[in-house]
Amino acid sequence: MIVAFVGTAGSGKTTLTAAFGRYLKENGHSVAYANLDTGVRKLPYRPDVDVRRDVTAWELMEEGYGPNGAIVESYDRLLPKVSAYLTEILKLEDERDYVLLDTPGQMETFLFHEFGVRLMENLPEPLTVYLFSPDILRKPEDFCFVRFFGLMIELRLGTTTVPAMSKVDTVERLEDYRKYLDDLDYLNSRLRLEPSMQGLLAHRMCSVLPELAPPTRILYVSARTGEGFDDLETLSYEHYCNCGDLT
Amino acid sequence: MIVAFVGTAGSGKTTLTAAFGRYLKENGHSVAYANLDTGVRKLPYRPDVDVRRDVTAWELMEEGYGPNGAIVESYDRLLPKVSAYLTEILKLEDERDYVLLDTPGQMETFLFHEFGVRLMENLPEPLTVYLFSPDILRKPEDFCFVRFFGLMIELRLGTTTVPAMSKVDTVERLEDYRKYLDDLDYLNSRLRLEPSMQGLLAHRMCSVLPELAPPTRILYVSARTGEGFDDLETLSYEHYCNCGDLT
Repeated sequence: MIVAFVGTAGSGKTTLTAAFGRYLKENGHSVAYANLDTGVRKLPYRPDVDVRRDVTAWELMEEGYGPNGAIVESYDRLLPKVSAYLTEILKLEDERDYVLLDTPGQMETFLFHEFGVRLMENLPEPLTVYLFSPDILRKPEDFCFVRFFGLMIELRLGTTTVPAMSKVDTVERLEDYRKYLDDLDYLNSRLRLEPSMQGLLAHRMCSVLPELAPPTRILYVSARTGEGFDDLETLSYEHYCNCGDLT
Repeated sequence: MIVAFVGTAGSGKTTLTAAFGRYLKENGHSVAYANLDTGVRKLPYRPDVDVRRDVTAWELMEEGYGPNGAIVESYDRLLPKVSAYLTEILKLEDERDYVLLDTPGQMETFLFHEFGVRLMENLPEPLTVYLFSPDILRKPEDFCFVRFFGLMIELRLGTTTVPAMSKVDTVERLEDYRKYLDDLDYLNSRLRLEPSMQGLLAHRMCSVLPELAPPTRILYVSARTGEGFDDLETLSYEHYCNCGDLT
């Protein structure tokens, strides 16, 4: 089965890919890794597929591109090779229990560039894990934003997407986050108290969320402690087997 | 009044900032420019405020960061200075008719990093223009994605946000795009025909859109030809005067 880690730069995709891969291997599974990030220098795992064999962001910077331009240009150059990457990933999926996809450092490169969209659309039922770091959650509206962002990824990539808070080992009171993320009614009752336009919009958006998507389990993971890896493994397996929904 | 251009790398923020600024000046307005992108090398306008005086992405790359890490780190270093930037931008807003904010190359840097969120939350009623390039629109679901993304930016930054398709001079049949973007009923009738899970989700999401936000006018702009600049000016003015809604 194929599991793709998607999230903003700094959300912990690469570290989690490596740590979850190790966990799976320790539990008797065969694992392959695909690195889709042209801008990463060192990887904490040995990739079976690596887009940097074709192009890296820093060689483009030597050609004169700025960092943002280099990243976009690198995926422009990868686009004609998307079928070759697909073939390789599909072959790995045949041979191994898990193929873990470590996506570009900047999430938008994957969501907005045709390379990411075409790759994901043509893979058989990949599970997308949308990683977000607890430090982007400062007020009730932010929790609504994150819940919706998972849906936006699903809409864009056409893949089942499960939101996962990363770095939970760095959080002091995880239960405070969980109240807002797991219990939409609670979040909505708090959003109702926000008098701003932003609060009003968040309240309206979170109120329609149950109409838009079946209830989704949120994962809480730590690459450092391995917390939540059992949940992620179970969820991947359920998704792969189509044994049920992801609640 | 303050107008912020937000969009993914390559959507044309910087070019549009320069071209729209020139247009405003030609029409008798005083204009200030603020560059918030630590990763840009050359600007086609002369910035009155420029975050690169404090830090640039490429000096961080010389310190050993990869391109993605350098971008994130540059905003970590800017964060303690957000109040100073706010003060400067507010002073410019007092002195000039327009302050144009050219935001980071990667949109997610602005949306997910506290620097962008804190800056926007503390500016008086800025108008955010969400720029997207026509090349990300390939199938009906993509139009739904873009419509929702405007709302996500509004939710995250707490600012009125108007979606604007950039580079319209490169598009052959603009009316085909406009049918999907301007007419939600038409878009929904097309989404109803999409049999995939993705189509179903898009249909559900676009169906609730009218409940979430008042009808929003979509802008169609070109930095090359100046198309749509009159609409953007009118809309900014209406927003500033609170003369009415943005339909």
